[in-house]
Parts: sequence; C-alpha cells; structure tokens
Amino acid sequence: MSTPSAPHALDAQSSEPERLGWMQGFPPSPAVAITYADGSFRQFPQSRWSFSNFRQFLPTKSVWRGSAPASSFLVSEQDLSRIPVALGDGRTITFGEALALTYADGIVVLHRGRIVYERYFGALAPHQQHIAMSVTKSFTGVLAGMLVAEGRIDPQAPVVAYVPEMAKCGFADARIQQVMDMTTGIAFTEVYNDPKSDVVAMRRAVGTSPPEPGTAPTSLLEYLTTVQKLGAHGEAFNYRTVNTDVLAWIVRRVTRQPFAQVLSERLWQPLGAEEDAYITVDRLGIEFAGGGLNTTLRDLARFGEMMRNRGHFNGRQIVQAAVVDEIARGADPAKFSRETYPTLPGWSYHNQWWVSHDAHGVIMARGIHGQSIYIDPKAEVVVARYASHPVAGNVGNDPVTLPAFAAVTRALMG
Amino acid sequence: MSTPSAPHALDAQSSEPERLGWMQGFPPSPAVAITYADGSFRQFPQSRWSFSNFRQFLPTKSVWRGSAPASSFLVSEQDLSRIPVALGDGRTITFGEALALTYADGIVVLHRGRIVYERYFGALAPHQQHIAMSVTKSFTGVLAGMLVAEGRIDPQAPVVAYVPEMAKCGFADARIQQVMDMTTGIAFTEVYNDPKSDVVAMRRAVGTSPPEPGTAPTSLLEYLTTVQKLGAHGEAFNYRTVNTDVLAWIVRRVTRQPFAQVLSERLWQPLGAEEDAYITVDRLGIEFAGGGLNTTLRDLARFGEMMRNRGHFNGRQIVQAAVVDEIARGADPAKFSRETYPTLPGWSYHNQWWVSHDAHGVIMARGIHGQSIYIDPKAEVVVARYASHPVAGNVGNDPVTLPAFAAVTRALMG
Repeated sequence: MSTPSAPHALDAQSSEPERLGWMQGFPPSPAVAITYADGSFRQFPQSRWSFSNFRQFLPTKSVWRGSAPASSFLVSEQDLSRIPVALGDGRTITFGEALALTYADGIVVLHRGRIVYERYFGALAPHQQHIAMSVTKSFTGVLAGMLVAEGRIDPQAPVVAYVPEMAKCGFADARIQQVMDMTTGIAFTEVYNDPKSDVVAMRRAVGTSPPEPGTAPTSLLEYLTTVQKLGAHGEAFNYRTVNTDVLAWIVRRVTRQPFAQVLSERLWQPLGAEEDAYITVDRLGIEFAGGGLNTTLRDLARFGEMMRNRGHFNGRQIVQAAVVDEIARGADPAKFSRETYPTLPGWSYHNQWWVSHDAHGVIMARGIHGQSIYIDPKAEVVVARYASHPVAGNVGNDPVTLPAFAAVTRALMG
Repeated sequence: MSTPSAPHALDAQSSEPERLGWMQGFPPSPAVAITYADGSFRQFPQSRWSFSNFRQFLPTKSVWRGSAPASSFLVSEQDLSRIPVALGDGRTITFGEALALTYADGIVVLHRGRIVYERYFGALAPHQQHIAMSVTKSFTGVLAGMLVAEGRIDPQAPVVAYVPEMAKCGFADARIQQVMDMTTGIAFTEVYNDPKSDVVAMRRAVGTSPPEPGTAPTSLLEYLTTVQKLGAHGEAFNYRTVNTDVLAWIVRRVTRQPFAQVLSERLWQPLGAEEDAYITVDRLGIEFAGGGLNTTLRDLARFGEMMRNRGHFNGRQIVQAAVVDEIARGADPAKFSRETYPTLPGWSYHNQWWVSHDAHGVIMARGIHGQSIYIDPKAEVVVARYASHPVAGNVGNDPVTLPAFAAVTRALMG
C-alpha cells in the first residue's frame, strides 16, 4: 500500500486469516492452531480469525432471534471506497484504505435506513457473528434504560437495594446512575496489556481467560462482590467493565430472567435480527454483559438504526424514545478525562454509550479492537463496523476511524 | 404414578429441572449449580437441564440453517397420550406414561409427514437444541454415504488411503465400509459408567470431559491415531464411537471442509431447518461427529422425515435415494451380538444406523440416554424423541421405548 503504514508489523492484507492459514487442516498443525488454553485466541494476528469464531473457544448462550422473518433492508449500493479521508496529521487517504488501516473485518453503512455500503474482510461473512466486546455494554445500557423508563429500576437507588450480595463491596452505595455512567469510585484497574491489571483477574472469573488453579473468585458475580471502593462515587468517569456487569446483575434481578433472554425478548426478536446472537458465559452460565456479545454485522446495524430512529424499527417502537433521548443527552463532559481520551475531546459517557456532544449529535458504541456503532442522527447515517485491530484500545484506531466515519457521513449528506 | 416405578430414585416428574431449581438464581447457589469442571453437566438428574443447554458448558460450532424460510409441517394433532402400550413383562401402560418412564425431554411424531403429536418436558422448548449424542453418528453416516454415492469415497479402500496420519494405528488397514458398520477390530472399550474405559480418555480428548494435566492426547484426531488394533476387521459389530470420528475425518479430507460446514450445506440448509444446530468441538475446533450434535426436536424430525422419503424433503432430493436404500438394507445380523443387545434381536448396524430387519423396515438413530429417531416406512411414521434417561445405554429404556413407538405406529396405521 502507498498509504501510511499500519501500526503493527502485519497490515490488514498481510494478516488476512486465509493467507496465514489459521485453523486450516484436519487437524490444524501447531503452527496454525489457535487455542483457548494458550491465550492465542485473544492475540493478534490470530484475532483476525478468532474474533469471527469466538464460540469455538468458549461456552456460550444463544440470544434467540425468534421465529419471525428477518426485518429487511433496502439496498442502494454506493461505492464509498474512494471517498477521501483527511487525517489529523495532514495526510489524506481513501475510505477503503481507512478500513484496511483499522483492520476492519466488515462494515455496513446505512443512510436513511438503506444499506449503501457493505463489505466483509478477514474471517467474517454476512451470516457469521463477530465478538462485539465492549459494544456489548451499549446493549446492556439500553436494556437497563428500558427498565428505568418502566419504573422498575430507580437510577437514584443504591446498588445494594437491588443486589444485597453487594453490601460489602465498593459498589454497595453507588447509585445505579453512577454505575450506568461509570462514575463509580472503585479499586479496579483496566489496562488491557498489563498482566497485573484487575481486568486480567476479571477475565479469569468470566472465563475469557483460563482460570489459574487456586486463584479465586472463579465466577463473574462472585468477582464483582470483591471489588473495593476507591474514592467517592460520582466524581469522574472511569471506564471500568465491572460497572456494566453490576448493571446486568440488576437487570437480571428485576426481570428475573437470564440476561440472554432479556436481550432476546426485548431487542433481538423485535429487531427482526437475521441471525441468533450469542454471548459468552462463565462457568455458572452467567453472561458477560460487559463484553461477551457476538452478532452479525447486519444485526449490529439493525440495532444502530433502531437507536437512530429513537427506538423505532421493524414497524414498531422497540425501545422507548425517552431512553434513546436520555442517552443522546450525554453526561457531564467535565467528568471525562482529556488525558485518557485524547481522541474524544468534549465527549462524555452516559448510560453505556459514548456521546460526542457535537453538532450532529453523534453517539457511539465502542469495542477495544475497533468494533463500533456510529450513529449520526443529523446525517441520518449509521455505521456498524467489526474489526480486529492489534492495539487493544481505540486510541489505536480513532485517528483513522473518526475522520473516516465523518467523511463518509459528509459524503452521504451530499 | 400408578405405573411401574422408574429405574432410578427420581422419576421424570420428580426430576423436572424447574422443580429441582437447576441453575436458577443469579448466581445459582452451589446446591443448584451445574458445571463443566465437576462433571455434573453429564450426570442425572442435572442432565435433565444440561442436555437442553449443552452449549453453556462447551465450545461449539454453529451448523447454519441458511437464510431461507424454514420448511413447514402440516399439523393434525391427535392425542396419542392414552394409547395403550403392552410391555414385554405383561404390564400395559399408556404412551404418555411411556414418555415419563423414558425421561423424554420432548417428542414429535409425524404421520405421512404431518405432525400428529408434539410435547415438551424437562428443560426443552421448541426452539431449543438438545444434545443428540450418538444420534449424531447417523448424520455422519448419511454424509459419508452421500460421498460414497458420488464416488468420492471408496468404501472398500483402507482408511489410510484417505488419512495417512492413521498409518500406524489400528484403523490403518480397516476398510471404510467396516468403519461405517463398526466392524473394525480395535482395542477400545466403550463402557460409559467405567472410569477406566477408553471412552473416558476419548472424552478428555474431545473435550466433553475436562482434560487431566499431563495426560495425552488432548485433541480428538490425535487421539484417534493412538487407537490400536485388536483382532481382525470385519468379523463382528462392536459399537465404538471412534469409528464415527474416523469416518468424519475422511469426510473432512474428501470435502476439504469443516464437518459443521458439510452438515450445514448438505443437510441443514436443504432441509429448511427451523433453527441452527450446533456441535461441540475439541480444543482445536474439530467437531465431535460421534456424539456432539445439538438440534431442535422438529429439526431432528425433519431429518427423519427426509430419510423416510428416501432422501426427498422440502421439495427437493436432498440425499440420494440409493444412500437411504443402502442404509435400510442393513448389515449382517449374524455379526450383531444378541448378548450385548438383548433388546434388539435380529437387528444390525449399517452405515451408522440401527436396522431392525422387521416387516415394517424400521430403522433407528439412537443416543445413549434415549435420544432417538424411529422411522417406520411401512407405517409412514417418524418419531423424534429427546430424552435424558439416567441409564447411559438404551438397554435402560428400550423395554419401554420400542413397544411404545410400535404401539403408536400401529395406532396411526389404523
């Protein structure tokens, strides 16, 4: 490529799974094997294959799509590949190059609800599910928001009011709204490439990393009860996945249903999803609501389009408009650290969504390897992208992703 | 119940999962937790829940149903529950009682292709998949038969001709037909309740039991290459699951596709299955073709109905008629031990199906906890049943199952 070099030894083309032969052969040879036990299923470049095949590594629950026909999209294909994208450093690339630079595994762009662009790369195919990672949180936030709108969750109540098991942990006196906005003051570090970070222990509890014999806790909900308090709640946004799993615990308590069932009945079935989704579970069958959802790209786009339409999709009001409006309102950007998020100046995090506070009212759902839903209400554009970027953190792809999505949006607005 | 007592402390009603509370609560308490690591997911009465939720314990691959609408069944509901069933010991029970005595989790009875009876018990629901266990073998047999019919597998060739990796193991010089009929002479014991049986080591390799550190092999195909020869091939039917996984290895080699993909493209999609199926995989993503398939009951019935119609279903010829005819022909009943199979006098095992050689031409696919497809061509009846009988072996339920299915069949013939 004549474009800027990728931030890793292997660029998107060189890391194409088919080319590297991952898991080919019966059995795959050790050189191309990807396994759960050795952790390779989480590592780049194996991730370019494994992120589209997560269920082969972990136990899962189905998120049933129901038995009705899938909702259909109108298609008005436009070749957006050559749209110029001006990067912050002065260079200009094309949208197609931006997809490669961000290791996209697939993208769907909707304009006024029509598919205008749809491409698959890596190991992804239209009917296959890709790990959404932290995009899962935004689903959890919407479900919790619906229960708030129905008066079944009081956002001002403390966590312990719904989950007595949390009485002795750092979340006990946090208000649910603080959990939803991740402004809880808890002792939990989330540094993905630091083996001593708390997120590693959380992964062991949730099962996305193999357990180490003798280390406890070995299940997600038990782990949550061990998180201690650090500082006051409500003072600053600190992105901590455990908040989302506390929120999902409350969702289960209030609905008396497994999380996967709530997701199926309240979103997947009414959306008319094309395929079942699935979510990874811990050893006790508890779903990882902070990062375990796997969906097809088109179904991710359906969810995004429903949000763009203030909860209306597939001929029905699926989510109360007030729930979407509340998310779009955002939280206080002053609580959002510019140092931690240099690529997101002026943004906030509210009800498990990233809110730009820009003139278009852009909101995003974001996963750490570039998984994203980008919703621009003013432009009537939704972008759903799955990716397996080698850098675990959006700071690795935002400098390309954000200008690219904005450029496509401008082009579609005409 | 006033009927004969169940062969276990807990009868069907007492072992209903909802009643016992398995996996209820967030999190489930230790008393009702079912886990992979402690093996409880394979044990009765936990099995009454776990057999309908197998994917929560193991990594799996999807068997995609495709994007076409599901094939539809006509329904002419008849209440078969009260049909009398005369047992071999002189007692008479009702068909409904027979279902309870065999710990049925669900049953679909088709007559001339119409659903005449459909019931769900235990933890099963119409859209949920249940572990088929050895019924999986009959799917594998049909796929292999199709490749034989296409001239891509020579049933008289030795295994080593397709799988050179088997050169030094007991299967090397076995003819593929002998593998299909399980008349290979191999050193492999399959005694489900004996912890020293080879089937336990196989389960560790295939992942359906937790691996023991230090014990090898840790993957299915590697395990197959360690099976040694014992006696001559072709002399007697010896039911050994490893034969099926050797057969599936050949299917993969010939098609150059993962087993789940072959199953999807050649059966699941053309059948118009209602739901995706799924199959458990080992740590290298290799499907357990000898016992890992999970399907809905209706989709199991679709497969059975296709077989009854000599390969024709959903408006098309899905499997060559010759493949079904060959299965129905059966193998030599003289090679079938009356001592080992006291409930199946005169039967044979051919191409991974159980063949009755009776006047109706009944054939069956059978799993060890009572999972079954019962096809009576003369009566134009197909019975698909999932079950979680406490006895691991059909000798535990055949004395009720076989008279019950025959009684229903006679009643439907009128």
